[in-house]
Amino acid sequence: MRTILLTIAYDGTDFHGWQVQPGLPTVQGELERALFELTGEKIAIDGTGRTDAGVHALGQCASLRTAAGIPTARLPYALNNLLPGGVRVLKAEERPEGFHARFDAKGKTYRYRLLLQGEDGEPPLFLRHYVYPLREALDLAAMREAATAMEGRYDCACFQAAGGEERESTVRTVYQVAVGAQPVAEQEEGLFPETKTGMLLDIDVSGDGFLYNMVRIMTGTLVDVGRGKIRAADIPSITAGKDRTRAGHTAPPQGLYLKKVYFDEAQLPGRKKGLDR
Amino acid sequence: MRTILLTIAYDGTDFHGWQVQPGLPTVQGELERALFELTGEKIAIDGTGRTDAGVHALGQCASLRTAAGIPTARLPYALNNLLPGGVRVLKAEERPEGFHARFDAKGKTYRYRLLLQGEDGEPPLFLRHYVYPLREALDLAAMREAATAMEGRYDCACFQAAGGEERESTVRTVYQVAVGAQPVAEQEEGLFPETKTGMLLDIDVSGDGFLYNMVRIMTGTLVDVGRGKIRAADIPSITAGKDRTRAGHTAPPQGLYLKKVYFDEAQLPGRKKGLDR
Repeated sequence: MRTILLTIAYDGTDFHGWQVQPGLPTVQGELERALFELTGEKIAIDGTGRTDAGVHALGQCASLRTAAGIPTARLPYALNNLLPGGVRVLKAEERPEGFHARFDAKGKTYRYRLLLQGEDGEPPLFLRHYVYPLREALDLAAMREAATAMEGRYDCACFQAAGGEERESTVRTVYQVAVGAQPVAEQEEGLFPETKTGMLLDIDVSGDGFLYNMVRIMTGTLVDVGRGKIRAADIPSITAGKDRTRAGHTAPPQGLYLKKVYFDEAQLPGRKKGLDR
Repeated sequence: MRTILLTIAYDGTDFHGWQVQPGLPTVQGELERALFELTGEKIAIDGTGRTDAGVHALGQCASLRTAAGIPTARLPYALNNLLPGGVRVLKAEERPEGFHARFDAKGKTYRYRLLLQGEDGEPPLFLRHYVYPLREALDLAAMREAATAMEGRYDCACFQAAGGEERESTVRTVYQVAVGAQPVAEQEEGLFPETKTGMLLDIDVSGDGFLYNMVRIMTGTLVDVGRGKIRAADIPSITAGKDRTRAGHTAPPQGLYLKKVYFDEAQLPGRKKGLDR
């Protein structure tokens, strides 16, 4: 038996999320079906993170055990031939016996992508499944101040939606919340007409673990700060209050990407800061 | 009764093309359904061009007649509320009685979008419905020479696929074939990971009319020239031969966009050149 770690990208548009659900297309379900076609084995894979319907991944990870003879290096090519166009295995690597993509992960980075269109912006057409479009001007300096205030090790209950799994603790370490703006119109025309003007705002959140909808609620809170509905200076009291109703709205799923999984603690963005509150 | 001209953008991914087909989602079908919901009238709309399944539009046009009282300027907003996310009415304008979006159009520009990824490029994931990805290096100078050789007024039978409507004549005027390359990676990261490296190659073809699959075959021919499989110097003899088998392959639908419809001859790109062969 070999233990293998897959790195996977997917377009969440066509799937009811990561996790297998009977009768519905899911990313895990497609991967397990492709593995069965390839190896004849019924292999259950363990993903690092569950993503909801419509949420994308640039670097999801999953571990599996197999007795099949196919060389590990050939697995991405062989699986991609059996997978739908919206799922792509980027990499396959052998790991020691007992390795587990969820339990051995030290942290993850999620990216949340906003499209700031300006007042005259039309809702996006070709990008409608890939960004959260906003027309109003946002106060980026206030958002960055609030983002920094969200970093640290603390009880993140205010950023947790109802409906997730029961957790023993809601304390998490948020290593970094990075707000990176880039104009999308440096070229004469953007990739699509809706990006001719405007700006992409990417919010990269790195942490050791995430509660249900946590990045979408953190993003919605940052947007509400940008709109002036929540003050950046109030973030510490909001997090200390552990009250979901004081945080901002939940940003929609289609702007969210599971960007990277870290198995080596040293590589986690923002890891070196003093984090305890 | 008012006669109204609509300008429409759509993502062709979710539709079986423009034209109404019983039981299948089409762009025309969605627009006629939305018009019925809005006005209570069974309105048949006349589109300028029929697009195939998977083909997109940045500026399709369609005319219609209505007795409904809704102000013309309100139509885009009202229709967009009733349309699926993949169709967007951009503009509604009144036109004189008798105006027809197909018969009164003087010409159109189609855009064909290639993604040149380089040898190491992964097939695109998030852009898979929107570009024709190519890994090999293309000879752009030869492609531009061939593009220019495709301009003019001539019998375009070599660029016609079987299966279209019967046409009285296959003579068309190709006003301009413009090959415009732009790097997609001027920003630190492109909009999606697959555009981190590589180049978008947009081929804009303007003409007074188009045969079935004409732009896709012209594009495939240009790609084959770029690959060295067809010589640019042979284009005049290929067009003169009127033989489909001597032209190149048919590029896939997802890279094609109906970019703009012209009702004023003076605005057609490339119109002033001497065109008769």
